[in-house]
Amino acid sequence: MKNKTIGFVGLGRMGGNMARCLKDKGYNVSALFDINDTTANELAAEIGSTAYTTLAEVTANADIILTVVTNDAAMDAIFFGADNLLTGAEGRKFINCATLTPAVHTKLEDAATKVGATCLEACMASSIPQARNGELFLMIGGREADFDANKPLLDELSKALHYVGPAGKASEVKALVNMVMNINTAALAEGLGIGDALGIDLKMLCEIFSQTGANSRVLETDAEDMILRDHDCYFSASHAAKDSGIALGLAAANGIQTPLAQATFDQYTKLTDMGNGELDKSGIAELTFKGRKA
Amino acid sequence: MKNKTIGFVGLGRMGGNMARCLKDKGYNVSALFDINDTTANELAAEIGSTAYTTLAEVTANADIILTVVTNDAAMDAIFFGADNLLTGAEGRKFINCATLTPAVHTKLEDAATKVGATCLEACMASSIPQARNGELFLMIGGREADFDANKPLLDELSKALHYVGPAGKASEVKALVNMVMNINTAALAEGLGIGDALGIDLKMLCEIFSQTGANSRVLETDAEDMILRDHDCYFSASHAAKDSGIALGLAAANGIQTPLAQATFDQYTKLTDMGNGELDKSGIAELTFKGRKA
Repeated sequence: MKNKTIGFVGLGRMGGNMARCLKDKGYNVSALFDINDTTANELAAEIGSTAYTTLAEVTANADIILTVVTNDAAMDAIFFGADNLLTGAEGRKFINCATLTPAVHTKLEDAATKVGATCLEACMASSIPQARNGELFLMIGGREADFDANKPLLDELSKALHYVGPAGKASEVKALVNMVMNINTAALAEGLGIGDALGIDLKMLCEIFSQTGANSRVLETDAEDMILRDHDCYFSASHAAKDSGIALGLAAANGIQTPLAQATFDQYTKLTDMGNGELDKSGIAELTFKGRKA
Repeated sequence: MKNKTIGFVGLGRMGGNMARCLKDKGYNVSALFDINDTTANELAAEIGSTAYTTLAEVTANADIILTVVTNDAAMDAIFFGADNLLTGAEGRKFINCATLTPAVHTKLEDAATKVGATCLEACMASSIPQARNGELFLMIGGREADFDANKPLLDELSKALHYVGPAGKASEVKALVNMVMNINTAALAEGLGIGDALGIDLKMLCEIFSQTGANSRVLETDAEDMILRDHDCYFSASHAAKDSGIALGLAAANGIQTPLAQATFDQYTKLTDMGNGELDKSGIAELTFKGRKA
């Protein structure tokens, strides 16, 4: 697909690094847009691309457009605002990488279809280094034919690629992944917080956790950060609150009782409300270690 | 230590299989006791040992006595009841394998010391096959000299052996292990329950969980059982409630807020109150899947 031009909208740490990755792999990254003009100009200079100040220009100058924005409101703005990506979008392929409320993807697919464009949701369960190295974990929702048409490009960005189902399904799966991850993170923070208060050697406690039914991926990724209070952000507390909140909405809509997801949402909301939403998700340990004040 | 005689008190699935294991390894298992005489007689016939009907006889006929009973009340009964293990116990070594409130171990150590006996707590984070095969995960609390004296026997029973600290510390660590495990189990049950209600292929969802931040040991051990409603008991819901309750007590005594542990305790208590305490811990999924009535 190296004969196609690629546009990017949203050049934060994820989007910017995905653009760098495709450029490195020889793709024609032809159009960049960010709400912050400086961000777009700097990246354009770095990788030899063009920054545009309107979304309609991105659509005019790219065949495939990846959007990597923050939330539902940002998606609404770039697709349905006064200046938007759907203007002159016939034949364009949109690949939307934000974690959104699942229903937003259905709405986008309908709107894209009306102007002769296609949409895919591409939910990422990965972080910045994976974006940079084309090793994302991608879950794709949308029409299967659209998935097949974009598969070569998606393969370049990912080391694991799952077609999950119709538009919205990937966001649902992503919300469940993050909901479970967030609960496991909150669990670890409680276990280490109590252990610390009891004077137990936390390194030994982590080793024992790792060898028993308490083991988890977040034990590997977050335990040391919790102990050392190193909360540099890979996945923020406010994002954790957002994704757990999406999962709670799905649960409520289907009559499923989820007290653990609720308690975790409450913890991350509390952390965010205290002004610590930009801590990494490991920052939840600030709520469970004696003497810490988040 | 094969010149020592070994007694067992509490011959349930764990204790009975530990006795079988030591017998197979050539130890002299000389004295058995269970609250159910038939259980004791049957095991005595099976492994060529002697069943006694009083605890004092076990003490009289064994150098090292392993106790594998259910809870604090049972420990109190066997050590401080009218007929008890401390009668004539000078020189005896007790190894107590129940998961108890940590303070109980301190009390036992004091009482044993007064009659010239020694005590160790040996907390197990394993299940029945590991007991049978001498592959337990053991966490030991007590005096380090007593640990050293019993280490050869403990090695025969375990594949992983951790000396954790003074009496009570192993129970604390065990309570934290099970608390975190129980929360992760409750998290998985919520994730799969919502996924099921959304019509997501649960096999695919589990595969995605396993490749992301949602991965955990309980995903490996419990997900399929949750989906298939196969709740044959390895670690019961009522035990899960008990251990989470111990952890909650430790947290409260130290002023640590643990909303996740509380929510999990409430779920397992609910399951137990509904008459399902003997389901495996995976039975918590009966509370989170649509249309199930636990």
